[in-house]
Amino acid sequence: MNKKIVIIGGVAGGATAAARLRRLSESNDIILIEKGEHVSFANCGLPYYIGGIITNRESLFVQTVEGMSKKFNLDIRNFSEALSINRDRKTVTIKEVKTGQTYEQDYDTLILSPGARPIVPPIPGINEAENLFTLRSVPDTDRIKDWVDHNHPSRAVIVGGGFIGLEMAENLAHRGISVQLVELGEQVMAPLDPEMAAMVHKELKTEGVDLILNDGVTAFKNKGREIVLQSGKELQSDVTILSIGVRPENELASEAGLSVGERGGIIVNEHLQTNDESIYAIGDAIEVKDYIQQTPTMVPLAWPANRQGRLVADHIHGKPAAYRGTLGTSVAKVFKLTVAATGNNEKLLKRLGKSYETIHVHPASNAAYYPGGSALALKLLFDPQTGEILGAQAIGYKGVEKRIDVIATAIKGQLKVWDLADLELAYAPPYSSAKDPVNMAGYVASNVASGELRIVHHDEIDEIVENGGYLIDVREPEEREIGKIEGSVPIPLGELRDRLDEIPKDKTIYINCQVGLRGYLATQILTHHGFEAANLSGGFKTYQFGKDVAKTIQYQ
Amino acid sequence: MNKKIVIIGGVAGGATAAARLRRLSESNDIILIEKGEHVSFANCGLPYYIGGIITNRESLFVQTVEGMSKKFNLDIRNFSEALSINRDRKTVTIKEVKTGQTYEQDYDTLILSPGARPIVPPIPGINEAENLFTLRSVPDTDRIKDWVDHNHPSRAVIVGGGFIGLEMAENLAHRGISVQLVELGEQVMAPLDPEMAAMVHKELKTEGVDLILNDGVTAFKNKGREIVLQSGKELQSDVTILSIGVRPENELASEAGLSVGERGGIIVNEHLQTNDESIYAIGDAIEVKDYIQQTPTMVPLAWPANRQGRLVADHIHGKPAAYRGTLGTSVAKVFKLTVAATGNNEKLLKRLGKSYETIHVHPASNAAYYPGGSALALKLLFDPQTGEILGAQAIGYKGVEKRIDVIATAIKGQLKVWDLADLELAYAPPYSSAKDPVNMAGYVASNVASGELRIVHHDEIDEIVENGGYLIDVREPEEREIGKIEGSVPIPLGELRDRLDEIPKDKTIYINCQVGLRGYLATQILTHHGFEAANLSGGFKTYQFGKDVAKTIQYQ
Ligand SMILES: Cc1cc2nc3c(=O)[nH]c(=O)nc-3n(C[C@H](O)[C@H](O)[C@H](O)COP(=O)(O)OP(=O)(O)OC[C@H]3O[C@@H](n4cnc5c(N)ncnc54)[C@H](O)[C@@H]3O)c2cc1C
Ligand SMILES: Cc1cc2nc3c(=O)[nH]c(=O)nc-3n(C[C@H](O)[C@H](O)[C@H](O)COP(=O)(O)OP(=O)(O)OC[C@H]3O[C@@H](n4cnc5c(N)ncnc54)[C@H](O)[C@@H]3O)c2cc1C
Ligand SMILES: CC(C)(COP(=O)(O)OP(=O)(O)OC[C@H]1O[C@@H](n2cnc3c(N)ncnc32)[C@H](O)[C@@H]1OP(=O)(O)O)[C@@H](O)C(=O)NCCC(=O)NCCS
Ligand SMILES: CC(C)(COP(=O)(O)OP(=O)(O)OC[C@H]1O[C@@H](n2cnc3c(N)ncnc32)[C@H](O)[C@@H]1OP(=O)(O)O)[C@@H](O)C(=O)NCCC(=O)NCCS
Repeated sequence: MNKKIVIIGGVAGGATAAARLRRLSESNDIILIEKGEHVSFANCGLPYYIGGIITNRESLFVQTVEGMSKKFNLDIRNFSEALSINRDRKTVTIKEVKTGQTYEQDYDTLILSPGARPIVPPIPGINEAENLFTLRSVPDTDRIKDWVDHNHPSRAVIVGGGFIGLEMAENLAHRGISVQLVELGEQVMAPLDPEMAAMVHKELKTEGVDLILNDGVTAFKNKGREIVLQSGKELQSDVTILSIGVRPENELASEAGLSVGERGGIIVNEHLQTNDESIYAIGDAIEVKDYIQQTPTMVPLAWPANRQGRLVADHIHGKPAAYRGTLGTSVAKVFKLTVAATGNNEKLLKRLGKSYETIHVHPASNAAYYPGGSALALKLLFDPQTGEILGAQAIGYKGVEKRIDVIATAIKGQLKVWDLADLELAYAPPYSSAKDPVNMAGYVASNVASGELRIVHHDEIDEIVENGGYLIDVREPEEREIGKIEGSVPIPLGELRDRLDEIPKDKTIYINCQVGLRGYLATQILTHHGFEAANLSGGFKTYQFGKDVAKTIQYQ
Repeated sequence: MNKKIVIIGGVAGGATAAARLRRLSESNDIILIEKGEHVSFANCGLPYYIGGIITNRESLFVQTVEGMSKKFNLDIRNFSEALSINRDRKTVTIKEVKTGQTYEQDYDTLILSPGARPIVPPIPGINEAENLFTLRSVPDTDRIKDWVDHNHPSRAVIVGGGFIGLEMAENLAHRGISVQLVELGEQVMAPLDPEMAAMVHKELKTEGVDLILNDGVTAFKNKGREIVLQSGKELQSDVTILSIGVRPENELASEAGLSVGERGGIIVNEHLQTNDESIYAIGDAIEVKDYIQQTPTMVPLAWPANRQGRLVADHIHGKPAAYRGTLGTSVAKVFKLTVAATGNNEKLLKRLGKSYETIHVHPASNAAYYPGGSALALKLLFDPQTGEILGAQAIGYKGVEKRIDVIATAIKGQLKVWDLADLELAYAPPYSSAKDPVNMAGYVASNVASGELRIVHHDEIDEIVENGGYLIDVREPEEREIGKIEGSVPIPLGELRDRLDEIPKDKTIYINCQVGLRGYLATQILTHHGFEAANLSGGFKTYQFGKDVAKTIQYQ
């Protein structure tokens, strides 16, 4: 039986659904409604085209209207905006953008994949700002690129330190523009915890980006050339990118009486159906479940949109398709750095009041003796009782997203932290070590979970020492010269066994080294000699990054 | 209670066991017996030091005898060879290599990690060959490097196309030496199936290596300067590396009455104990279980040796440690190419008579529009009934081992092929696509497993066409000009729906495209129009590589 399936939104979710629907049936009418000119374009490539890294504009069009119509026998209507859903008659009112004419299109099944749009708050002067842009579509991209190409700005201001803000910072810097980045929070990149974000802050500064944290825009002046911040600071800007987040395109849905969540996402069941079962919704516009906690959240990323597009097509064809939630696995290139994360972060777990533990390791991306490797910082979050993996964050120059992908896979396989030690990962010197960083994180987390290793965290140790805690720094004297924790007592690891009598027996001994490994060895030595000992997780390195954030909070 | 633990072999397995043993107890005597000068050295780095990629010889020593003794409070005895195990008295007879003196060392627990040595067959002239080397130890490395540094060889012959042979080929080529590689089998790199190995063959040829397959050495003449092959061919060599495999160092064990398997590996239980429960054996010297099939096998790689070293230490300390088998996850850099694999290959599954299916995909390593990406070839092996993942192989220039690590993790998580589609992997244009190659392999394999897509394989299609099968090539005319399958009928995908009446209704229609994707679309179109259709898996690309191997078998 022939069905009429109408899809609103022709990019990540919508185009994927259309393609899969056609593969499942040759006979249905599939109508793709897109208000813009382009369908199936590479949203994620836009910043790189502006930056000149992607040079060919055509390459942004993964499919063209003509090509895709033909290949998948689709009725694609671009320049067509859906104005309303008339659920009683099962029609959508559509406006032809070029002529302004409207008509009603009937449907048997409707799929909403309208995405999310950049948030533009009513800041004084914002409408008069001529040099202010948001980035979502190809026309946005053309506008920004055109401005940069023709006005040769020398100073850019990025408002908002999320993925798109950081990508724009990098790409504008790549164009030779000096960049200031203003972020209201204490850190960029929300998926990261503060001590991890501090590494991104460092990279940004190294690359010459002027990072202004804990500050927001209160006004645009002089047609946007001057930006006034909450702190009173005034910035000069030749081009400003506003990238403070997105909000779901939910108007069509809510006006049609479809349920919408607190933060604006369209509410769907596990088959991605709205409260009207003939209307599905997918992509950036919907509220999803956090995969780990099963609590509602919004994750505007391409993988979920693509995955949901396919699942919806399957469900429409009677297949048992269900979406269990979004882990939020993400990655971004920030200049030379790669930053990736999956699952829950500490901020969230704290907010939810969950029981969790974290460990930090800093292993080499590949065999230390083979050129081109470098340390990566890997944070693992887990339930210390059950060993359940709750999330991970990784930052470094090489092999970063590989480790996050492996952990994301482990989570879906319901592996526990101790199973990470058992993952048999590919090793040769250019790629890893015989114990991969993920194995290493697994070892450390298992030791903590089993009680074999007691740890303290970067944000606890200062207070411990201030309150009279005894902290031994087992690094070599040269290392301490570069930086140390105030109040720590130096006993290099190699001397520890011979100097046990210097150490008080009546209280917990805290230990730190550079990354946590020698500290662990020292902790074990002390424990076996009858001391109560605890290791500073991630060592001085994690401590220092934690301090960096604490400083920005304090001093701004 | 104090225990005396003696470990024979001080590198990957042995040194790891020693380190972990000390972390678990400060009181046991841990004695590490190593016949060579060095413990804990980077075996895997040796080829790169010869090639000049690793420049600092010191960096090969992950730990020194002195440093490690101190750090872990070990009794390390280098230049000490274990000659025999006297199980009745629980002692080992040890020879001090420098003096020739022997003594007996008693043990409570003994760990054997003696590794495996290069196979050196009794080929006529081999003992007189002055320029012939095997590579295992630091002295071997020094000898080869010295020879290259001082004799400036212009022609090298590598005998054997395994990991070490290929790494040596690359590294000698890197030194400006022209390299010939002789391999007895039809392909290099045994973990790969032939059509995948063909890509490695191509890379070797591109890099100027003269690859001689299906041929072996029958004699060395003129002090090794001339090498006579089975085919009658004679090669000239200034330096020859013999790398035809390794055999386990099992003499100590077998002479002491410990069980040894058919292929020479010491037999252990899941706690890595030999048939004498106070004697453990680990690493290259043991027989392990294939993780998937639970059949006996030998996998001389660093990850298993390291992992087993830790497990043994745990078991000795009463922890419930068990080794479930080796997946054989591996990776090698072959010039610019990365080649990785995990689990079972097709050759093995055939030999075991297992039911399996394979699919081939050729997705881009990262978003096609972002510079620096390139296609990777990914082969997935699975049980079409249960969806169990049996193995995978990947080859390409970027992101190759990442996909194998993800699949290796999925296997350990007991995920099925359809779960691969559900893996939420990190995506941004420099790293992947919104549907990662692993997702893609999951989609294709699920379609095959569910019966949604019927496929034929690269090695079946010629015969099908010869026997009158109808094969449609849905690529564009330009693509056919570069190469096509004999007998295929050209109907570009875009014209297919309009030309259905040209296609016979009374028989199965076979389809090929370049990589399998358009062929799949065509297969679906035909199926929905009532045809019986099957797609050539991996398209013309996989077919062509399959042909390349077939050719070498035929013509040598
Ligand atoms: C600059 C940028 C960079 C990004 N980088 C990444 C990245 O690196 N990794 C990542 O995972 N994600 C990235 N994303 C996010 C990713 O692109 C989105 O998550 C994904 O495209 C969401 O898919 P969707 O189908 O929900 O919405 P979209 O892909 O945005 O498609 C929605 C479409 O619906 C149309 N539409 C909306 N309302 C209507 C209407 N009423 N009538 C008709 N048409 C309508 C819109 O015009 C739009 O074309 C990036 C996004 C941007 C903007
Ligand atoms: C050149 C080369 C490159 C490699 N590259 C890789 C790679 O990229 N990836 C990978 O996974 N694996 C690689 N390997 C393999 C890896 O090094 C081994 O799998 C691993 O070292 C095995 O550990 P083991 O403890 O069993 O043996 P080994 O590390 O070989 O240690 C055994 C030690 O025991 C000593 N010994 C033996 N018999 C006695 C005795 N009777 N008395 C005293 N001492 C004794 C030996 O001298 C030796 O030092 C490579 C190996 C080589 C040689
Ligand atoms: C281009 C677009 C329409 C493609 O959708 P799609 O056809 O579902 O996806 P792909 O082209 O990746 O192909 C996937 C399909 O091909 C199949 N396939 C892929 N390679 C194959 C091969 N070698 N052999 C057989 N089948 C193959 C897969 O099984 C899958 O089919 P299925 O869903 O029926 O199982 C859609 O992804 C899109 O619009 N992308 C751009 C927008 C976007 O995603 N933006 C955000 C990121 S920048
Ligand atoms: C060098 C060698 C002796 C090290 O063995 P090791 O101490 O077990 O291994 P590592 O140095 O990687 O350290 C791992 C240990 O440190 C712990 N660790 C690592 N980073 C840590 C951190 N940041 N905080 C706390 N603990 C940490 C791990 O938990 C693990 O301890 P555990 O086994 O008690 O759980 C051994 O690996 C070796 O000889 N290697 C060279 C030979 C070789 O492997 N060759 C083949 C490959 S080239």
